[in-house]
Amino acid sequence: MPLPALRSALTALALLAIAVPAPVTASAQPAKRPTSKEVLDSSPPADWRQPVPENTLYLDLPAGRVVIELAPGFAPIHVDNMRKLAREHWYDGTFIVRVQDNYVTQWGQPEETPKPMKTALEKLAPEFTVRGGAKSLPFTRLPDPDAYAAEVGISDIFPAARDAKTGEAWMAHCYGIVGVGRGMPLDSGSGAELYTVIGHSPRALDRVITLVGRVLSGMDHLTALPRGTGPLGFYEKVEQRVPVQQVRLAADVPEAEREKIEVLSGQSPTYQRWLDARRFRQDDFFIRAAGHIDLCNAMPPVRAKQG
Amino acid sequence: MPLPALRSALTALALLAIAVPAPVTASAQPAKRPTSKEVLDSSPPADWRQPVPENTLYLDLPAGRVVIELAPGFAPIHVDNMRKLAREHWYDGTFIVRVQDNYVTQWGQPEETPKPMKTALEKLAPEFTVRGGAKSLPFTRLPDPDAYAAEVGISDIFPAARDAKTGEAWMAHCYGIVGVGRGMPLDSGSGAELYTVIGHSPRALDRVITLVGRVLSGMDHLTALPRGTGPLGFYEKVEQRVPVQQVRLAADVPEAEREKIEVLSGQSPTYQRWLDARRFRQDDFFIRAAGHIDLCNAMPPVRAKQG
Repeated sequence: MPLPALRSALTALALLAIAVPAPVTASAQPAKRPTSKEVLDSSPPADWRQPVPENTLYLDLPAGRVVIELAPGFAPIHVDNMRKLAREHWYDGTFIVRVQDNYVTQWGQPEETPKPMKTALEKLAPEFTVRGGAKSLPFTRLPDPDAYAAEVGISDIFPAARDAKTGEAWMAHCYGIVGVGRGMPLDSGSGAELYTVIGHSPRALDRVITLVGRVLSGMDHLTALPRGTGPLGFYEKVEQRVPVQQVRLAADVPEAEREKIEVLSGQSPTYQRWLDARRFRQDDFFIRAAGHIDLCNAMPPVRAKQG
Repeated sequence: MPLPALRSALTALALLAIAVPAPVTASAQPAKRPTSKEVLDSSPPADWRQPVPENTLYLDLPAGRVVIELAPGFAPIHVDNMRKLAREHWYDGTFIVRVQDNYVTQWGQPEETPKPMKTALEKLAPEFTVRGGAKSLPFTRLPDPDAYAAEVGISDIFPAARDAKTGEAWMAHCYGIVGVGRGMPLDSGSGAELYTVIGHSPRALDRVITLVGRVLSGMDHLTALPRGTGPLGFYEKVEQRVPVQQVRLAADVPEAEREKIEVLSGQSPTYQRWLDARRFRQDDFFIRAAGHIDLCNAMPPVRAKQG
């Protein structure tokens, strides 16, 4: 879409995300950093990867499909259980039951009609952190300070934090990250009841709940919903609930029918260049480059599969 | 709503925001810190204030009312112009034209039908920072590090940052903060085209755009909207736009008809106690208190006016 003349402030804000190509020049003028768009446009295909079919859930709602990539590196027990739940079609016919503004959208089986599991387990040991994860998990550390953790960075495609002293690593509650609802008992979550973050990232929940994955596409189907008017954003009337039509593991969908998206690897050279471009924006609109970025603004980008 | 037995993980996540009263005891057991709810419930009325009528806009949408408190301390020129726009009823009949997921909802006059102003000005000098604001504006500094600024804190009821070296202070792009759309020219904003943050806080926009206020209630009317499918989340079809029915300054509404809400002052003793309770949560669900809080999770709470 070509940009019209820049007289309207309306058009103007639109510019926020439009990259202005940097001049390619051999003159004495100092070269501008590339924009984040330029970095991505010139990136090698090898720096991107498709969602791993065995780790990817398709959550089908009336409004469309949500694609969630699970993270067995952070929560192997829960991811395994969620594969079982998907394969026994446990999720089909459940509902979105809660939408709390600036917090979470939550889905699962309404408590007044419990639903038995066939192959999956009702209770799992918590996976709030990964012991030894500070060494064993990939990690591209971010340079800027974080309010909640001494070290934050990207592990594969997931926002994460780690503690060099204890050796633990954990996923962080960023926008679009998926977590496991639980009760007071630490083992009361199973991956049957899930939520995703729909507002400013509530990082105080880190290490208190098992996080299992990240929404890669279709996030708007979970955010553009009426907020619940009951306590904590639960829908008060049964008819307000949004049906979960079906949930399938991508591995169980014929390859030709899988979603054609790819994610930039957080361990790739392109990610480092993209991060640099995001920290020091060269768009003309950004008269002052922040020079910084926080974890939840630094999640590796997703795009339609190229080529 | 009394809580049912805690067997369901669904009910369980609900517990996240429910305060468990701390034991009041004279025994040898170390006293728990009060919860944030306890802090608020026991707070003196003087630590709260109502929105200032001359600074408060009522934005009426088909779904309901959004209450925005403007911040003349940060953007006096823009706030003055917005009062004029409201008083000449300029905003009435404009539209929400853009909803970009995890970014902004934006409203104003569609660019194809420009609308002249009577008393307000079309262009204003930018107010990206307040010179001398580091000394002149109230500021309760937060203890945890921030990725974007050396010092962050709460100024009155607004999230803010400051630079001791330059003496500047500025409002920060947190969830629900309201900004002024502009074009490339720095003086091209007027307060006619506005947006609010609806996702993880895009702090890279700080000091690049004039921020004018904060949504105090009705935020869900701006977030639970279909995302635009055009570039940058603009609605592609005219009929998708959401009409702004009218915008009035609270001062121009009879006192009896004003919204009955109040906000905790960021400079009050209660705010400090609330902040402490939020940093070290005592809810039983939070098996590990974060011990930290970031700026955009630390905005002073709003509640229905008491008494």
